[in-house]
Amino acid sequence: MFSFASDNNSGAHAEVMAALAAANSGHCLSYGGDPFTRRAEELFQDVFGAKTRVYFVFLGTAANVLALQTGLKAYEAVICADTAHIHTDECGALEALGRKLYTVPGRHGKIAPADCLPPLRFAGSVHHAPPRMLSITQSTELGGLYRPAEIRALADFCRAHGLWLHMDGARLANAAAALGCGLHAASAALGVDMLSFGGSKNGLLYGEAVLIFRPELAEDFAFYHKRGMQLASKMRYIAAQFQAYLHNDLWRRNAQQANDMARLLAESLEGTEGLEITRPVEVNAVFARLPRRAALEAQKSCPFYIWDETPEETPEARWMTSFDTTPEAVRDFAAKIKNALRGK
Amino acid sequence: MFSFASDNNSGAHAEVMAALAAANSGHCLSYGGDPFTRRAEELFQDVFGAKTRVYFVFLGTAANVLALQTGLKAYEAVICADTAHIHTDECGALEALGRKLYTVPGRHGKIAPADCLPPLRFAGSVHHAPPRMLSITQSTELGGLYRPAEIRALADFCRAHGLWLHMDGARLANAAAALGCGLHAASAALGVDMLSFGGSKNGLLYGEAVLIFRPELAEDFAFYHKRGMQLASKMRYIAAQFQAYLHNDLWRRNAQQANDMARLLAESLEGTEGLEITRPVEVNAVFARLPRRAALEAQKSCPFYIWDETPEETPEARWMTSFDTTPEAVRDFAAKIKNALRGK
Amino acid sequence: MFSFASDNNSGAHAEVMAALAAANSGHCLSYGGDPFTRRAEELFQDVFGAKTRVYFVFLGTAANVLALQTGLKAYEAVICADTAHIHTDECGALEALGRKLYTVPGRHGKIAPADCLPPLRFAGSVHHAPPRMLSITQSTELGGLYRPAEIRALADFCRAHGLWLHMDGARLANAAAALGCGLHAASAALGVDMLSFGGSKNGLLYGEAVLIFRPELAEDFAFYHKRGMQLASKMRYIAAQFQAYLHNDLWRRNAQQANDMARLLAESLEGTEGLEITRPVEVNAVFARLPRRAALEAQKSCPFYIWDETPEETPEARWMTSFDTTPEAVRDFAAKIKNALRGK
Amino acid sequence: MFSFASDNNSGAHAEVMAALAAANSGHCLSYGGDPFTRRAEELFQDVFGAKTRVYFVFLGTAANVLALQTGLKAYEAVICADTAHIHTDECGALEALGRKLYTVPGRHGKIAPADCLPPLRFAGSVHHAPPRMLSITQSTELGGLYRPAEIRALADFCRAHGLWLHMDGARLANAAAALGCGLHAASAALGVDMLSFGGSKNGLLYGEAVLIFRPELAEDFAFYHKRGMQLASKMRYIAAQFQAYLHNDLWRRNAQQANDMARLLAESLEGTEGLEITRPVEVNAVFARLPRRAALEAQKSCPFYIWDETPEETPEARWMTSFDTTPEAVRDFAAKIKNALRGK
Repeated sequence: MFSFASDNNSGAHAEVMAALAAANSGHCLSYGGDPFTRRAEELFQDVFGAKTRVYFVFLGTAANVLALQTGLKAYEAVICADTAHIHTDECGALEALGRKLYTVPGRHGKIAPADCLPPLRFAGSVHHAPPRMLSITQSTELGGLYRPAEIRALADFCRAHGLWLHMDGARLANAAAALGCGLHAASAALGVDMLSFGGSKNGLLYGEAVLIFRPELAEDFAFYHKRGMQLASKMRYIAAQFQAYLHNDLWRRNAQQANDMARLLAESLEGTEGLEITRPVEVNAVFARLPRRAALEAQKSCPFYIWDETPEETPEARWMTSFDTTPEAVRDFAAKIKNALRGK
Repeated sequence: MFSFASDNNSGAHAEVMAALAAANSGHCLSYGGDPFTRRAEELFQDVFGAKTRVYFVFLGTAANVLALQTGLKAYEAVICADTAHIHTDECGALEALGRKLYTVPGRHGKIAPADCLPPLRFAGSVHHAPPRMLSITQSTELGGLYRPAEIRALADFCRAHGLWLHMDGARLANAAAALGCGLHAASAALGVDMLSFGGSKNGLLYGEAVLIFRPELAEDFAFYHKRGMQLASKMRYIAAQFQAYLHNDLWRRNAQQANDMARLLAESLEGTEGLEITRPVEVNAVFARLPRRAALEAQKSCPFYIWDETPEETPEARWMTSFDTTPEAVRDFAAKIKNALRGK
Repeated sequence: MFSFASDNNSGAHAEVMAALAAANSGHCLSYGGDPFTRRAEELFQDVFGAKTRVYFVFLGTAANVLALQTGLKAYEAVICADTAHIHTDECGALEALGRKLYTVPGRHGKIAPADCLPPLRFAGSVHHAPPRMLSITQSTELGGLYRPAEIRALADFCRAHGLWLHMDGARLANAAAALGCGLHAASAALGVDMLSFGGSKNGLLYGEAVLIFRPELAEDFAFYHKRGMQLASKMRYIAAQFQAYLHNDLWRRNAQQANDMARLLAESLEGTEGLEITRPVEVNAVFARLPRRAALEAQKSCPFYIWDETPEETPEARWMTSFDTTPEAVRDFAAKIKNALRGK
Repeated sequence: MFSFASDNNSGAHAEVMAALAAANSGHCLSYGGDPFTRRAEELFQDVFGAKTRVYFVFLGTAANVLALQTGLKAYEAVICADTAHIHTDECGALEALGRKLYTVPGRHGKIAPADCLPPLRFAGSVHHAPPRMLSITQSTELGGLYRPAEIRALADFCRAHGLWLHMDGARLANAAAALGCGLHAASAALGVDMLSFGGSKNGLLYGEAVLIFRPELAEDFAFYHKRGMQLASKMRYIAAQFQAYLHNDLWRRNAQQANDMARLLAESLEGTEGLEITRPVEVNAVFARLPRRAALEAQKSCPFYIWDETPEETPEARWMTSFDTTPEAVRDFAAKIKNALRGK
C-alpha cells in the first residue's frame, strides 16, 4: 500500500536501518554519553558550524516546543503564521508550558515582515505578553517554500525588533533540495537562530534534532530537555540514525525523491477537468480542489486528507509524497483520481 | 485632577466606603465564612437566580482566567475576539495556566457566530486543542455594545457546537445601563454560562465576582480559587463592597453617570474639525482619531491613551469616563481638545 | 465575638481605615502610577534600604509564589520546612506555576543548615530539579521564632551553596516585636534576599508586599506580577494601608499587642490540669494539647483550630491572637477552656 | 565494554531488532493507525485484560508523568516514596505540568499504608492540594521488591481513602521474574489502577507503555498523550518492539538473566573484607558500601554510580545488571572490585 496522507506514513530508509543495527553493539553510557551521540554532534557541527549546540528529541512537536521554551521567558510570546504547526497541530503543547502565541495570516503558510507588525504593539508593557520570537516553517504546512532572501528579510526584521528567529524545519530537507542549496545555507546562514531539524518525515524511524546557533539560547536547554520528557536514555539509537541521515547526503537524496514525486503527481493531474491545483508545487506536497464525491471515491483506494472543508462542495485535498514513493505509485494514484473525477 | 485614561483611575463611591467601614467591626471567620459574604451571595442570587454560584476575586484578570480554567479541561481552548482583554491585556495569564486561545476578528470588539466558525475545525482530533468555550466582552474593549439578540445568537451557537459561553463583564453595568435592562437580563437570561462580574471599574476599591450559572462548571472552582491566589482571607471586605454595589442599584447609578458623560463628551466634540469619532458611543468610552500633535498637546492637561498608533499621523485616542466624572470635567476636557486641535 | 482561630479573623486597624478614606479622593493613575504607591515605596525604602524593590500584591500566598517564581528558573526548586505554608496551605499554587519543592523536617517549623543538606544532592545534573532557593517562615507556622544568628547561619549556608534566601514574613511584625528589633534588622540585614512582607494578619484589610533586596532578582518581577493576577488596578488603596502601617510603628504596636495576648493566654493556662502547652510561646500563637472532649466543648464558645489530630485523644489546638485581642477576651477564653477541662 | 552503571547502558535484544526490521515495510497510517499498534494492543490486552487501555510513549518519565496527570485534577496531588523516580529523577517534569507531590520515607524505596497516613490530612479543604493518587515503584529505585500482599494492602488503603494506585513499572519485568509470576499477577491483579510499563531497561531501543485498567482514568489520555509530546508519528516501531517483548516471554528471559547476574555479583562479593552489601539483592541491582578510594579505583575499569555520598569515607555504590550482562563480565568486575579493595 502507498499512502499520500502524510510523509510520515513511510517507513525508514535502509541505510538508517543499517546504522541502527550497527549501533546495537554492547554497552555504552546512556543519556548521550555515548560515542554515537558525540559523532552525530560532530557531523551536525561540520554542517552547521562548530558552535552549534545539538540536542536530540523524539518528535517534531517536542523540537518546536523546547526550542521556543528556551528562547522565551515565561511571559514572552512567539509570533507565527496562523497555519503554523505549533498553533494548529500540537494540541496546545506550547501553551501547556505557559507560552503564548500571536498568529498572523500568511500566504501558503509563508509570512513576511509586514505581516508581523501588529503583534509588535504588545512589546514594552507588563499588560501584554511581549513578543520575543518569530517562528517560521520551511517548507510550510501548505507546501510553501521560502526563498533565501525572504528568510533573510525576516531575520533582519527580527534583529530590528529584538526577536529571535526559529525555524520549524520538519521538512527543511525538502526545502533545501528544492532550493538546490545545503542545510546550513537554508537556515543558519540566513539568520535563523534555532532550528527544529526534522528526520521522521524523511526516512528516520523517529528522532529530530534541536540545533541552536546562539550559545546564549542554549544555556538552560539541557534542563528543559530532561524536564520536557525528551532526554532519551539510549540516545545512541537516535544519534546513529542521524549519522546515516547526514552521510552521503541521504537527506537530500530522500527529499529530492519526495519532491520529484510531488512534481510528477502535479504534472500527471494538470489539466484534469474538475480538479484545480491550488498552491505552488515546490516541495513534496500537492494541494488541489476537487468535487467532494470524487475525493471520497479516491480515498477508498489510497489514504489522504481533506485539508480544508470549505467550500463544502469542492474541498481542498492534500497529497504528500515520501522518500520511498515510486513513480508507479504516483501514476497509479493519479489514474485513480482521474477515474474518480470521471465518476468511474 | 480628572483622568480620561481609564475608568479605573477613579476612586471608590461613598456608599462603598461606608459599607467597608460598617464591615470593620470585630472578629469573624476568614476565607468567606463570614456573614457579609453570605449576605452578598444572597444578594447575587436574588439578582441572578438561586442556583448561581458566587466567588469573589481581587481583580478582573483573575475573574476571567479562573472562569475559563474551570470551564476548560487542560487541553481545551477558548475562542475570543482578537481584541479581547484575555488575549491582549492579561500578559498571558490564561496561557500561564496552560490554556489556549483561538482569536477571531470582530467589529468594535464584537463577534458573531459566523466569526467563530474557523476554529471549530479544531474539534474532534487529538492533534488540535479543541475549542470548548466562547468568551465575549460586554461592553467590549472598544466600546462596543452587544444587543440581547446578538448574545442570544451566540449562546445558540455555543449550544449547537458544545461550547460554554463566558462573558467578561468588567463593564457589564455600563452595558446594562445602556440597554436599560437588569444585570440578569443582560447576561444569564441570554444564555451566558459564566460571568466575570466587574466592580473595580465602577465604584469599588477592588473586587470582582465570578458568577457561575451551571453547577457542573463550579465543581472544582473552590480549589482553582485558592490555587489561583484569589481566595481572600478577610473576604468580608470584598463582600461588603458588593452589598453596597447591588443595593439601591448603585451599579446602575454609577454606570449611567459614566455613560452619560461619554455621550456628553462625544456631543461636545461632534463636528470638530480635524477630529473624527471612530466608533459608536454607547457606553462609557469615546474613541476618536485626531492629529498626533493635538493628541500630545491634550495629554499634557489630562491623561488618556492612544489606543491605536496607526495611521501614525492621526492615531486613535481612547477616552474613558467614570462614575464620578462630572459634566464640568467633560466640558473642560472637550475645550482642551479643541484648543489643541486649533493649535492653541 | 472574639475568635482565636486565626489572626486573620480580626478586622482592620482604625488608622488603616482612616488612610484608606484619605486616599479616596479624586482620580489618579492606575496600576501603581499614583502618588500613594510612590510614597509607600519610599517608606519601605526608608526602612529596608534605597535599593529595595517594592511590589504590592493582594495576599500572602501570592507574595510567596511570585517571590519564589522570580528567583527560580522554570526547572529549579526551593527547599523549605515540611510545615511551610507554601507546601501545606497554598493548594499547590507554587507547583501550578511549575516550580518544585523539597521539604525537610524542622522543629516548631524552624530549620537549620544541617536540615537542608540532603536536597543539595539534587544540584548539578539535569536529572534532578536543582535547589536554588531556601524559604523560611518568620515567625513560623507553629509559633517558632528564629533568632537573628540562626537566620544569619542560614544565609551563610545559602551563599555557600548558591541558594537565594526567601523569608515568608506573613508574621514578620510579630517576630520583630518579639525580638525587639526593627523590620530591616529582622530580615534584609541578616542576609534575606527576598521577603514576603505581611499586612493582612496584623491590621490591614488586604494587601502584602514583596520586597526584593537584590535587583537582579527583580528583573522580571513586573511581568510575573501582572501575569500572576496580582497587579491591582487601584493600587493606591493597598499603598495607603501600608503608609499607615509603617507610620509611627503601627506594625509594632499591633504585633506587640497580639504577642502580649498570646503570652497572657499561656500564663492564664499554665499549670492547668489536663492541658499541656506544647511549643514555646514567643509570638502570637499558643499551641496546647488537651482532651478532645474539652477541645470540642471550648470550640462552642470561641472558634479555634485543631492543628494536629494525633494522638486522637489529646489533639493539639492552635490559638492565635490578633492586634485587637483584648485582655478581657483572653481571660474569658482561658476560663472557658478551664471549665471545659473540668467538664463544666 | 560492560557497564554496571545502569540497565539502560545495554543495547537492544536481537529479537527486538528483528521485529523492528520486519515492521519496516511499506506505508501505513501514522499516529497509531497501523496494524502493528493494533496487534501490540491486543497482546497487552491478552495479558492484562480486554478492558486495558494501552498507550505507547517514548520514555519512562513520560509514562509516569502522563499517567499521573490523567489521574489527577489540576489541583490534586500524588503520594510517593521520597526515593521515587518521579520525585528525584525527572527534573520536576510532574510539577512542570502543575501537579504536586507529597513524599514519605520508605525502606529500600518501599512504602506501606502507615507511611502514607500523614499526607491524608491534606484532603478535604481548599487550602491544601488533596492527595488523590499513590505511586509506587516495582521493583524500587533501591532494588526493593514488593511482595504481592504488600501491594494488595496498598491497594486496599487506596480504596479506603479515595486514592488511585499507580505503579512505576520501569522494572516490573525484573520484579515479576523475581516473584515468579506473570505481569498481570504482579500489577493489575493486585489492585493497581495504572501502570507505567517499562521496556527500555530490559531490551528495547526505546519505548514504554502506559496501561490503564480503569476506563474512567483514560477518558482524556489521548489528548494528554499528544499534548505531552509523546504521540509517535511512526508508532509502528514502538509497537513492533513490544510485540517482540511480549512474545515467548522475552521480557521474562531478559529480566531473569539480569536478576541472575545481580545475584551472581552479590555472591561473588559476599564476605569480601571492606565491602558491605547494604540492601537485599532480589532483582537486578546490588548496593554496597566500600571505601571511597576503592570505589574510585573500580570505576576506572567499569562505569557505575555512587548512589549515596554519605558517609563520605564509605559511600554506597549501585551496580545494575542487564539482560545481556554475562557471567564472565560479572566475575571480571567482582575481581576488579576485590583488587581495588586490596589496594592492588
